[in-house]
Amino acid sequence: MEHYRTLRIFQKSPNSGVFHLNLNRQSQRNALSRDFFTEFPIAFQSLDQNPNASVILLSGTGDHFCSGIDINTLNSTADDSGDRGRSGEKLRRDIKFLQDAITAIERCRKPVIAAIKGACIGGADLGTLQRLPGIVGFGNAMELALTGRRFSGQEAKELGLVSRVFGSKEELDEGVRIIAEGIAAKSPLAVTGTKAVLLRSRDASLEQGLDYVATWNSAMLLSEDLREAVSAHLQKRKPTFSKL
Amino acid sequence: MEHYRTLRIFQKSPNSGVFHLNLNRQSQRNALSRDFFTEFPIAFQSLDQNPNASVILLSGTGDHFCSGIDINTLNSTADDSGDRGRSGEKLRRDIKFLQDAITAIERCRKPVIAAIKGACIGGADLGTLQRLPGIVGFGNAMELALTGRRFSGQEAKELGLVSRVFGSKEELDEGVRIIAEGIAAKSPLAVTGTKAVLLRSRDASLEQGLDYVATWNSAMLLSEDLREAVSAHLQKRKPTFSKL
Amino acid sequence: MEHYRTLRIFQKSPNSGVFHLNLNRQSQRNALSRDFFTEFPIAFQSLDQNPNASVILLSGTGDHFCSGIDINTLNSTADDSGDRGRSGEKLRRDIKFLQDAITAIERCRKPVIAAIKGACIGGADLGTLQRLPGIVGFGNAMELALTGRRFSGQEAKELGLVSRVFGSKEELDEGVRIIAEGIAAKSPLAVTGTKAVLLRSRDASLEQGLDYVATWNSAMLLSEDLREAVSAHLQKRKPTFSKL
Amino acid sequence: MEHYRTLRIFQKSPNSGVFHLNLNRQSQRNALSRDFFTEFPIAFQSLDQNPNASVILLSGTGDHFCSGIDINTLNSTADDSGDRGRSGEKLRRDIKFLQDAITAIERCRKPVIAAIKGACIGGADLGTLQRLPGIVGFGNAMELALTGRRFSGQEAKELGLVSRVFGSKEELDEGVRIIAEGIAAKSPLAVTGTKAVLLRSRDASLEQGLDYVATWNSAMLLSEDLREAVSAHLQKRKPTFSKL
Amino acid sequence: MEHYRTLRIFQKSPNSGVFHLNLNRQSQRNALSRDFFTEFPIAFQSLDQNPNASVILLSGTGDHFCSGIDINTLNSTADDSGDRGRSGEKLRRDIKFLQDAITAIERCRKPVIAAIKGACIGGADLGTLQRLPGIVGFGNAMELALTGRRFSGQEAKELGLVSRVFGSKEELDEGVRIIAEGIAAKSPLAVTGTKAVLLRSRDASLEQGLDYVATWNSAMLLSEDLREAVSAHLQKRKPTFSKL
Amino acid sequence: MEHYRTLRIFQKSPNSGVFHLNLNRQSQRNALSRDFFTEFPIAFQSLDQNPNASVILLSGTGDHFCSGIDINTLNSTADDSGDRGRSGEKLRRDIKFLQDAITAIERCRKPVIAAIKGACIGGADLGTLQRLPGIVGFGNAMELALTGRRFSGQEAKELGLVSRVFGSKEELDEGVRIIAEGIAAKSPLAVTGTKAVLLRSRDASLEQGLDYVATWNSAMLLSEDLREAVSAHLQKRKPTFSKL
Repeated sequence: MEHYRTLRIFQKSPNSGVFHLNLNRQSQRNALSRDFFTEFPIAFQSLDQNPNASVILLSGTGDHFCSGIDINTLNSTADDSGDRGRSGEKLRRDIKFLQDAITAIERCRKPVIAAIKGACIGGADLGTLQRLPGIVGFGNAMELALTGRRFSGQEAKELGLVSRVFGSKEELDEGVRIIAEGIAAKSPLAVTGTKAVLLRSRDASLEQGLDYVATWNSAMLLSEDLREAVSAHLQKRKPTFSKL
Repeated sequence: MEHYRTLRIFQKSPNSGVFHLNLNRQSQRNALSRDFFTEFPIAFQSLDQNPNASVILLSGTGDHFCSGIDINTLNSTADDSGDRGRSGEKLRRDIKFLQDAITAIERCRKPVIAAIKGACIGGADLGTLQRLPGIVGFGNAMELALTGRRFSGQEAKELGLVSRVFGSKEELDEGVRIIAEGIAAKSPLAVTGTKAVLLRSRDASLEQGLDYVATWNSAMLLSEDLREAVSAHLQKRKPTFSKL
Repeated sequence: MEHYRTLRIFQKSPNSGVFHLNLNRQSQRNALSRDFFTEFPIAFQSLDQNPNASVILLSGTGDHFCSGIDINTLNSTADDSGDRGRSGEKLRRDIKFLQDAITAIERCRKPVIAAIKGACIGGADLGTLQRLPGIVGFGNAMELALTGRRFSGQEAKELGLVSRVFGSKEELDEGVRIIAEGIAAKSPLAVTGTKAVLLRSRDASLEQGLDYVATWNSAMLLSEDLREAVSAHLQKRKPTFSKL
Repeated sequence: MEHYRTLRIFQKSPNSGVFHLNLNRQSQRNALSRDFFTEFPIAFQSLDQNPNASVILLSGTGDHFCSGIDINTLNSTADDSGDRGRSGEKLRRDIKFLQDAITAIERCRKPVIAAIKGACIGGADLGTLQRLPGIVGFGNAMELALTGRRFSGQEAKELGLVSRVFGSKEELDEGVRIIAEGIAAKSPLAVTGTKAVLLRSRDASLEQGLDYVATWNSAMLLSEDLREAVSAHLQKRKPTFSKL
Repeated sequence: MEHYRTLRIFQKSPNSGVFHLNLNRQSQRNALSRDFFTEFPIAFQSLDQNPNASVILLSGTGDHFCSGIDINTLNSTADDSGDRGRSGEKLRRDIKFLQDAITAIERCRKPVIAAIKGACIGGADLGTLQRLPGIVGFGNAMELALTGRRFSGQEAKELGLVSRVFGSKEELDEGVRIIAEGIAAKSPLAVTGTKAVLLRSRDASLEQGLDYVATWNSAMLLSEDLREAVSAHLQKRKPTFSKL
Repeated sequence: MEHYRTLRIFQKSPNSGVFHLNLNRQSQRNALSRDFFTEFPIAFQSLDQNPNASVILLSGTGDHFCSGIDINTLNSTADDSGDRGRSGEKLRRDIKFLQDAITAIERCRKPVIAAIKGACIGGADLGTLQRLPGIVGFGNAMELALTGRRFSGQEAKELGLVSRVFGSKEELDEGVRIIAEGIAAKSPLAVTGTKAVLLRSRDASLEQGLDYVATWNSAMLLSEDLREAVSAHLQKRKPTFSKL
């Protein structure tokens, strides 16, 4: 496994299919450094290609999930010396590089679950204004973005931004483990297909989305996984699926 | 009225404008058979063209709304004998046929209210991944689709997936009846226009949507219904609208 | 400052950057007259260009926010004398004129906060069917539009249609003032950029939205505001930004 | 084979895979009657499902291809008696019915070649303003639509509206036959896939289009047809494909 | 009629419905000054609302149509003094103001025909990169934009950028007059509808475009113009339409 | 400079800014092997980042530009052993990998000119059905794709697929050199901006495209290049631009 400066990849239960991806700069409360932006997509590509990884659990070392973008990353991005047009062009490419690291979560075919505790501060705006309205509604997104105010996990749950709230770090770990292992036990073709089709349908018209999933399933549906799922259902046993 | 094997169409109050469309395979807990997929769009087309039908109430016979897709429907769809490309092409068309039956709910100009009790299991993925995110938010849709977990009517309400939750079957029937008759008493031009414009705006930009509704209303607004609505409002009486 | 027949623009605290835009036809419960539709976009353009205005607070004079479209506006719109095609064409343009007045809220670069008390009745459908689904979810939008039912501020909050509910008019005024002044104290480049990018991303694919914000920031990020924000953060003081 | 009042379906060479679909109201110069709009989509659905039909050749009986929409069709459409809103709503549905008949050419999975001689007058505007700009360019489409002028086959060729011009009816018949039989000899999976993907990509972004064709081919590429095509190429013989 | 500094509006034949809009800064070869950008949209709005104007003929005074953007306009736009973010924000609004003047040609409901002689140099890039590909094809647009080369009227005709080429100024004037008067003699509802639907369909999917034109026609088709057109056709006489 | 097995990068005139990218498998008539699909995007990324490269000239070694996809590439892609769903999923990713190599031409910020002689056979369908209609029109694209017929350079020119046709290899080389050096002498900010905005506008509505280019230019317009261009124009000398 690769060596990372800002991340850690590990498994707690070797055969569970669940891999942990850990923001690992505890001294900086996991602030997002330039190294992070380089390593994050590499880590996801490696997990994407790892046949043993079915589900990825994203978490932060220490008391906090993430303290936001590192001031040094911001400073190096915002260098405005030299010709104004050229520094604008360079800045644009740099922002796209930073965005691209975050989008790696979507490019990875496998589900990613974030287990968040303590502070969770966004990495500047690297996709928030684009993704938030579809998650919490346009009105809530506008209010949160304009006020920049803090909100609790409970409010995040009410907004639809997180799926569940837990009472303690132990309950969080246990609850997330159960969800992750539950997904990891399903057909990997069905799970990665669900993620892919949901993401793809986001930017499609309804009619395009329906046609797309029909085309997708004409390629992917007829698999051993379907047979195994039906057969296990009839035999009232747990299904077993081969890796992807 | 047509004879259906898997459905039943009837009215409880003859002049209310409310028609019941009943999933009617109680022995199979209203599992969705191939007959269903053929009959469902025919039933909606018939109700669409029936001038006496203003609102359609969708419900299930017996204790449960629907137990999902029939295993035989799935098996007949998933036939992978013969040439791989040709069976893929055939499967794609079959999925589109199945999807099309569900989309009949949207093609029907008239409002459709689902009165759900007991189990409500989706008909495989025939539009869920496309429609759910716009209803419950992208995050919630992803979580529900990946875990495939059960959720209560109360949670469905909190998610925005259902409009109201009732304490008993009687309250459900009564509550839904009141909503349905309320809509049925409104201008049919305004009601079908509202449904049409909402659906059409879903896949349009804001600017396209605004232009579309302006164009729509330039054709539909100036009707007897508008005159009657204004006049009834001024005379503080209930308006009466002719059928569509 | 311009003189308006249906509106009032004023400041409560001269240096706060917060401007009040008041629906000011109390005798008609602020019903939306033809004058209103002419004056509303003019008022927003004037506030947009006023460098002292950072945030706009929209409210209604008297006990109610707004009693909806004025019956005379509706009647003058719905004139169907003369050739049917020509009156349709004229009606279409008139609807677009009315819509355009409402869209002025979005065209204005500065944030607009509505402080609503009492009745709040929509101005006919002048963008509701297009905007509501993205705010409250498609299912809720359909239910509200088809039933046309009343709902409380509390339900509006649960739906995501309003950001906060207050217990009294005094708490409303005070609460809204604090939010408005909080936004007005931020970098005007960041605030107007956030509003612009959120609105623009609404009709773009994710990929288009990300590229757009990267391009936007390549022009707008490198400003005195960024330097001041970072510097104030390090010096643990409030930042001061020049006007836009 | 069905019996049609306005159309004729026949084969000239029984095993060629080429089916002729003939506009067959010579006395009216093949003007498009209400019967035509009913029968045209039925004919295409029948040819779509006919495994012996690989390519469809559309032509007109007599000296002219088509003299445009029948005045009676137009009159029955344009009935404006009764309530204005309701007749508008009915007219809208009728136009969609007429449009739908023309779109049957695209819904049919198989290629359709029009062999045009004499007059070719459009069926009112039932998709022209939508399709013409993508075929001849936006400027040419605007000029042709606003002037409504006649243009020759030679100009149609220069505009990209037709693929080839022939000197006589005999050369037309022979030339079109050769093209049709050439397409009919290709892999039906590849031919129908090409038509489907081209049509689908028309309304997609480049990125969506590329993803779609990759998904399509993941289902359809691995077929006997590919094996046969490669093998015939290596053996320098004509490939033979089974029907679709 | 308004007084313009850079334009001239006049009629050559008073009852023809054809209005001339003349770029009128001959001393500067009709270079586009800041005054022009202010006056051009005002002129189009005035012509749009003038019921006597059916068709607009755009031309340039003197030997040349236009020598491009005035250097002073460019300089005033490109002022980069002051804070970089703020001057970027201001520049963005100024470019949109300039673009908006050009888009006035599309906003005007009535057809605009450009009669071009001599030099025709674009007004910087104020919509060229957006509109050219749909007119001349993407490949040609890329080549022309990257080389910035000159091309003749004849090549413009082959590219689809102009509709016709004339041998002399006199032939140009006469040819354009005939086209303009031909369009002006048609139903103004049909002509403005054709322009509107073509422009609107440009950014819509085929399905959206078809639905839009059906909705449009459900409002506009049933007019005196249709009756007059059919009746004149049967009586073999020229139709007469009332103004819009 | 990197070492490639299937490509060659070189300059003919060291200071011209023009780099040659050569398909270099003459023994196989430059058939596209798996190595090619790996190396092609790497070569473009390297040229994109090379400040000395302003324009890229794509050509083929030997008598032909390219003989299409290598049969071995196709075979390795079309491996259908193993589970049908899994091989479909793998094939889909492989097709996207192949597509991605071709799209590298667009991802590269700098203009790419193809100098084509002899045979030019497409690399299977890796974007043709998506890009061709916008280049040659939808009708021509359909005809070419369904017949798969050969066409000459002259017809390619008439279709808008190539920009110019030359009489001999020498004239081709010389003509392309002049075009390339002409572009290379322009402002690199303007040239890369033109390519970027044209590509980006392809999938945007007109309104989105206009807003995008205004935003782009608010970042990129105010550069030394603009000053130098204006100044050189006034001084009637050739401008000199620094590298990007």
